[in-house]
Amino acid sequence: MTVSTLPPLPRLLLEPIVRNALLEDLGLAGDITSNAVIPADHRSVVVMAAREPGVIAGLDAAELAFQLVDTAIVMNRNVMDGATVEPGDIIATIEGPSRGLLTAERTALNFLGHLSGIASVTARIVAAIAGSKASVACTRKTTPGLRAMEKYAVRAGGGMNHRFALYDAVLIKDNHIAVSGSVRHAIRRAKTGVGHLVKIEVEVDTLAQLQEAMEEGVDAVLLDNMTPEQLREAVHFVAGRAITEASGRINPQTAPAIAASGVDLISIGWLTHSAPVLDIGLDFKSQG
Amino acid sequence: MTVSTLPPLPRLLLEPIVRNALLEDLGLAGDITSNAVIPADHRSVVVMAAREPGVIAGLDAAELAFQLVDTAIVMNRNVMDGATVEPGDIIATIEGPSRGLLTAERTALNFLGHLSGIASVTARIVAAIAGSKASVACTRKTTPGLRAMEKYAVRAGGGMNHRFALYDAVLIKDNHIAVSGSVRHAIRRAKTGVGHLVKIEVEVDTLAQLQEAMEEGVDAVLLDNMTPEQLREAVHFVAGRAITEASGRINPQTAPAIAASGVDLISIGWLTHSAPVLDIGLDFKSQG
Amino acid sequence: MTVSTLPPLPRLLLEPIVRNALLEDLGLAGDITSNAVIPADHRSVVVMAAREPGVIAGLDAAELAFQLVDTAIVMNRNVMDGATVEPGDIIATIEGPSRGLLTAERTALNFLGHLSGIASVTARIVAAIAGSKASVACTRKTTPGLRAMEKYAVRAGGGMNHRFALYDAVLIKDNHIAVSGSVRHAIRRAKTGVGHLVKIEVEVDTLAQLQEAMEEGVDAVLLDNMTPEQLREAVHFVAGRAITEASGRINPQTAPAIAASGVDLISIGWLTHSAPVLDIGLDFKSQG
Amino acid sequence: MTVSTLPPLPRLLLEPIVRNALLEDLGLAGDITSNAVIPADHRSVVVMAAREPGVIAGLDAAELAFQLVDTAIVMNRNVMDGATVEPGDIIATIEGPSRGLLTAERTALNFLGHLSGIASVTARIVAAIAGSKASVACTRKTTPGLRAMEKYAVRAGGGMNHRFALYDAVLIKDNHIAVSGSVRHAIRRAKTGVGHLVKIEVEVDTLAQLQEAMEEGVDAVLLDNMTPEQLREAVHFVAGRAITEASGRINPQTAPAIAASGVDLISIGWLTHSAPVLDIGLDFKSQG
Amino acid sequence: MTVSTLPPLPRLLLEPIVRNALLEDLGLAGDITSNAVIPADHRSVVVMAAREPGVIAGLDAAELAFQLVDTAIVMNRNVMDGATVEPGDIIATIEGPSRGLLTAERTALNFLGHLSGIASVTARIVAAIAGSKASVACTRKTTPGLRAMEKYAVRAGGGMNHRFALYDAVLIKDNHIAVSGSVRHAIRRAKTGVGHLVKIEVEVDTLAQLQEAMEEGVDAVLLDNMTPEQLREAVHFVAGRAITEASGRINPQTAPAIAASGVDLISIGWLTHSAPVLDIGLDFKSQG
Amino acid sequence: MTVSTLPPLPRLLLEPIVRNALLEDLGLAGDITSNAVIPADHRSVVVMAAREPGVIAGLDAAELAFQLVDTAIVMNRNVMDGATVEPGDIIATIEGPSRGLLTAERTALNFLGHLSGIASVTARIVAAIAGSKASVACTRKTTPGLRAMEKYAVRAGGGMNHRFALYDAVLIKDNHIAVSGSVRHAIRRAKTGVGHLVKIEVEVDTLAQLQEAMEEGVDAVLLDNMTPEQLREAVHFVAGRAITEASGRINPQTAPAIAASGVDLISIGWLTHSAPVLDIGLDFKSQG
Repeated sequence: MTVSTLPPLPRLLLEPIVRNALLEDLGLAGDITSNAVIPADHRSVVVMAAREPGVIAGLDAAELAFQLVDTAIVMNRNVMDGATVEPGDIIATIEGPSRGLLTAERTALNFLGHLSGIASVTARIVAAIAGSKASVACTRKTTPGLRAMEKYAVRAGGGMNHRFALYDAVLIKDNHIAVSGSVRHAIRRAKTGVGHLVKIEVEVDTLAQLQEAMEEGVDAVLLDNMTPEQLREAVHFVAGRAITEASGRINPQTAPAIAASGVDLISIGWLTHSAPVLDIGLDFKSQG
Repeated sequence: MTVSTLPPLPRLLLEPIVRNALLEDLGLAGDITSNAVIPADHRSVVVMAAREPGVIAGLDAAELAFQLVDTAIVMNRNVMDGATVEPGDIIATIEGPSRGLLTAERTALNFLGHLSGIASVTARIVAAIAGSKASVACTRKTTPGLRAMEKYAVRAGGGMNHRFALYDAVLIKDNHIAVSGSVRHAIRRAKTGVGHLVKIEVEVDTLAQLQEAMEEGVDAVLLDNMTPEQLREAVHFVAGRAITEASGRINPQTAPAIAASGVDLISIGWLTHSAPVLDIGLDFKSQG
Repeated sequence: MTVSTLPPLPRLLLEPIVRNALLEDLGLAGDITSNAVIPADHRSVVVMAAREPGVIAGLDAAELAFQLVDTAIVMNRNVMDGATVEPGDIIATIEGPSRGLLTAERTALNFLGHLSGIASVTARIVAAIAGSKASVACTRKTTPGLRAMEKYAVRAGGGMNHRFALYDAVLIKDNHIAVSGSVRHAIRRAKTGVGHLVKIEVEVDTLAQLQEAMEEGVDAVLLDNMTPEQLREAVHFVAGRAITEASGRINPQTAPAIAASGVDLISIGWLTHSAPVLDIGLDFKSQG
Repeated sequence: MTVSTLPPLPRLLLEPIVRNALLEDLGLAGDITSNAVIPADHRSVVVMAAREPGVIAGLDAAELAFQLVDTAIVMNRNVMDGATVEPGDIIATIEGPSRGLLTAERTALNFLGHLSGIASVTARIVAAIAGSKASVACTRKTTPGLRAMEKYAVRAGGGMNHRFALYDAVLIKDNHIAVSGSVRHAIRRAKTGVGHLVKIEVEVDTLAQLQEAMEEGVDAVLLDNMTPEQLREAVHFVAGRAITEASGRINPQTAPAIAASGVDLISIGWLTHSAPVLDIGLDFKSQG
Repeated sequence: MTVSTLPPLPRLLLEPIVRNALLEDLGLAGDITSNAVIPADHRSVVVMAAREPGVIAGLDAAELAFQLVDTAIVMNRNVMDGATVEPGDIIATIEGPSRGLLTAERTALNFLGHLSGIASVTARIVAAIAGSKASVACTRKTTPGLRAMEKYAVRAGGGMNHRFALYDAVLIKDNHIAVSGSVRHAIRRAKTGVGHLVKIEVEVDTLAQLQEAMEEGVDAVLLDNMTPEQLREAVHFVAGRAITEASGRINPQTAPAIAASGVDLISIGWLTHSAPVLDIGLDFKSQG
Repeated sequence: MTVSTLPPLPRLLLEPIVRNALLEDLGLAGDITSNAVIPADHRSVVVMAAREPGVIAGLDAAELAFQLVDTAIVMNRNVMDGATVEPGDIIATIEGPSRGLLTAERTALNFLGHLSGIASVTARIVAAIAGSKASVACTRKTTPGLRAMEKYAVRAGGGMNHRFALYDAVLIKDNHIAVSGSVRHAIRRAKTGVGHLVKIEVEVDTLAQLQEAMEEGVDAVLLDNMTPEQLREAVHFVAGRAITEASGRINPQTAPAIAASGVDLISIGWLTHSAPVLDIGLDFKSQG
């Protein structure tokens, strides 16, 4: 996915989240340090630069954090979301009243670092399996309140989104199968219970379950915790009749072998729930 | 900090956050898989267990996730927040209608895994410096929307909280100093500008700055990116006249030497912004 | 769809909507008539009965309206959502303080009448095409703020839900085709741009467009404003390779011929945007 | 009422409702079709035109829907709320980025069609009784969450608003009378219980009740389900001492005879709870 | 007005206001003093008593403050809203976990003191004019966010409520008259512009204006800043054709003479915008 | 504190409060008087002037009230928050559509009058103790929902803010001491339970308690209800080792003697909970 094909998140979604984050930090008394120490009319230019290599995501949220604190702040971007950066690369220059810049700085970086962290680990996995036909996807294992943003960050990193939530696709998992008695029963119930525009995926642990699923017919199969060999066998068995998805603690080391099995998709919860932040710094050029 | 001295977060704070997380996942159509596949009157018992060693935090949020989906769900805890668990340890047993259990499962785990992850890395650093007089503290580098919960998770892991936000203490950082001209000017302005119950901390990079800060008098000094030797010298110079805090990418490996320098406090942004989740699993025991 | 297979909407979704409706009616001064005229300790039993034949939907919202006004009010249902009623059939008996009953009455009926109206017209269309293989579906032409409830009411009436919103399926409509140049281009872009669990439907006005769509491969085709003869031809051409959906001002009179064409689905915006309320009355049995 | 005397609803009221409606449709993933199919920089001109005769209401909400999705969208109106349109009449031209236009289209039309539907049926009743002295009024039987808008749409159609809610006037209805024992008791209690700026209306079913009400003195009488003859008798009896209001399933056919009875007001719940949408279309003129 | 005829405010209105007040006080870190100093299992009994004479209002809000902090807290009331208290009179006894009691104490008292202050000054004015036919009313000069509560407190003190807001009655004030040219024009426009259940009051400064108003016919006249003699003349002129209301900085000293003029109503902004709190204390009886 | 050193409250904090206040007044029907009486295109210039001497606070909230009602309204300020005004002094000139001006007028004045009232009484106490070294501070006895604004108003009047809420400092009060057994125990528990940037203050009633507090070491002592003589003795005993704060119904008459005792701080709940509004008028200059 190239940068130019990454549609931005609508401000309708971003604004309540950024507003809430700022209010966490401002409370009732606001930024007592900057208000006491910085003259009201002092202006600065701030340079936002990467301190480690990675992929950027979250510039809209960062810019919104600055502008919701002070509409006089202007941010000029050197790169766009989805861009790869190296240490020292300037991401954006931000200019305006120093107090507002200092007040919004941490919130802006909390968004940008977190989302760029997700984009960066996604890009790393994507690169690790380059050459295979597999795509990389995230899961519903997201940070509460930030799902739309984190799914977007995965796209910025070149990944795909699995279903967004409980409502947009059927995913029959082990516990559903256990309760409904069999893969077969679960699939049949699902088919009669959902609309014509809803896809159905089923999680299978064994080839016997996979066979049952394919007999019933599903749109996708989640092959959970299988070895590359088992995956290859599964892909061969499915033979294009459904999307094949591998999951289960896949990391950059294990990903190439898994991708080489021929699966269509590798899904990784770790992209959104455990990616470390990307280290990004803000450097003040005081203007007086 | 022992478990019994960890005051819970008020439900007033938790409920809007958990409610929002559930609504992210439910959207307008809800859990279409469970609604289609699971009979309405089917009940299950679920066992929540640790899959890796760590420290638990977030049980109230997890329980609330289940109960906001279905008030008929009951959760019985085997451990409390702050408890250390080993792989296989049962954390809680949850019982109720299977649909509600399946619907809330992911949201509950997203909270519990994230917060336990923070508690666990905190506990690891705390253990690494056991024997020293230093405490471990988190920062304002938190995930947007989750600061109260993440600060709580640090306490559950045996850590301390630095200031919560921009409003509850003065922290004069490098950029404040740059704008106001000197450590001395910044401290003087702060002293005249804030109330009598607000403490003042100043970040210093050099012993010269430290000397200036101590001449003015502050409550705490943040010794940024200093070596253990520099820290020792700084602690000696301060001589108990202020709290001494070390910061700057401290990890379990470097923490012991830093703590041995005699600082009162080690603060680590990584605890809240980059802790991986603690792996916790839910196992369904179907009841029919 | 039988009544027992209609999963209720979660209270998490209903409560903010019902709360908002009550606050519209209460404002700052509340129910000044009942407060002035009805003694505080007076209790009543209220009988809620159908005044015309139809299908009931919205009992949870109605009950919630009463209970959010006064937790002492108890509602006992004679029927469940999805039930067919005749004039005079008792739907529920509600008992409690008279003031609260009078205060909540209109809000409760506004929900129940509106949603039952939708369920009733849906059931009428479903009955009109009984014997055909076609299902009846609603659209995104819903009343702002009530989409989840209205989609539920369609299910209560025996209908199906088309996609819920912009996010849960691709539906390429005439304007998308116009902008992207051709059916072919639009489908190709969609396929590369969305996830593996997202279905793709395309609206076609002619058999030529249909042929183009089937060459590219889609999950469903929306056959817009076609005659029964054209539909029959289209269904024959598709030959099971995709879901076939007829749309375009279909009413109970025209529905049977359209269903007889062999389409899988008839979608009707009118179900949600123009269904008249079902007339339901509340009769007070004063208790003193 | 001429168009120029229709004060607009304040944006303070409209915005949360429109925002909520858009968020229903956008969810977390947004408009996946337009984002995949339409180039980001493509612009269109859209013509919004009536497909059937009626009266327009809701242009502010429709415009807000477009602008909250993309501030670059501009809407130029050919007519104002309250205007009568014929099939083919252009209502407005809307111009801007195609993606935003496609994303907001359905929400804008859901508002405009619904409110214009109400205005149109109101205008039809108003026209049906032209020449009589009676006004047409709506009731509290409104769609939950949309009362302010629907009351406005009635005004746009030339109707009047009855009380807005439980708080702005006393309306003693049959159930109040039943509980308080008599028309007389209910009126007396109301008079001592409410402020000097609150009017009192009482619903009466018989001339005996009407006589009791007039003996006590009220501002208005609601003559429920009376025949034109009974209404004429009631109006004669009241003789200008109170406003006379007829209600009870009045439709365009029955309205003229009822209005001819000399009542001041005809109130019709159907205007707001069962008006079908006005059919309005959006036609895209692609610009590239 | 006796205590028993004071309908409580619905919890739907109170809860968001009390919740917001508690969150102001709790922030992210909560009650750090009580959490550090008070054992988690310590319980107390608290006695809430008046420290000065007055009238109580706001017990529901106070109780809600305690219960939203800890559902285990129980409050038993000795008096009800509207009761007159003397110094030392016990208002309520509250029992539960000491931490919760200490956390909620200030918020509960902020509500109770503020609202009881309003009730108390209202009762003082009401008593000052006892024997006259005049009622005491409040205005729209209320504290932002608390209007429903403050209007209620006036009722608890034996006063009446003037219109609640801009929407529930027409009040033509001096500025409206200035803009519309004359009292006559303003009244005529109002009569054609508002519904049949809306009363019209006009503010007049002179007898000439009063005469103009009575010629047009209005429901009430607000006699602004007139002397008792002017008021008597005005009341005589109106002769029961409209409600007469005196306003303009009326205080307990001037109220009797104004009431003796025969006006129906005395309205006083001071009741809600400048009433000092009623001093109420909480005394802890520790239980261990 | 001079005017220029008063940092404004962020719009992020103000806007939800002002929006809520306007919605209280607008309800569903809006300003029915102005809409009926004032032509839509009529414009006015309004002069806002003081009617009594005082100190201004709240101009941002007042301006926001006008602009949220109509963005075409422009307010030009003659003075800034913190300015001292005399009767007749013009505070601001406001210009725009007359309807919007009349609609927003009361809300704007409710904010401005309330906050200026607080600033004015604060300034009066500050002036009364001029020459002493004591500062004047407010407490947590604020109006629910308005704490940030009221604390700001105290700053505008030249006062200081005590802690803002339960979270930003430890204040051990009589009830905490009672529960924990002694001043000593309470302080010790507090010291181990809170972070390094949290100050600790303890309330003492006697010199014995004060001695105990100083032995343990605290940042500040609240000397409750002491006479000037007792305060002098206490100040002498503390000898600069902690901040000394006097409290207990201090008024302009008693303040000088208390300040002369040498305390650092006088805290007064009355500033925020019982300050009468400052009388400010709006005068319309109609423009047609």
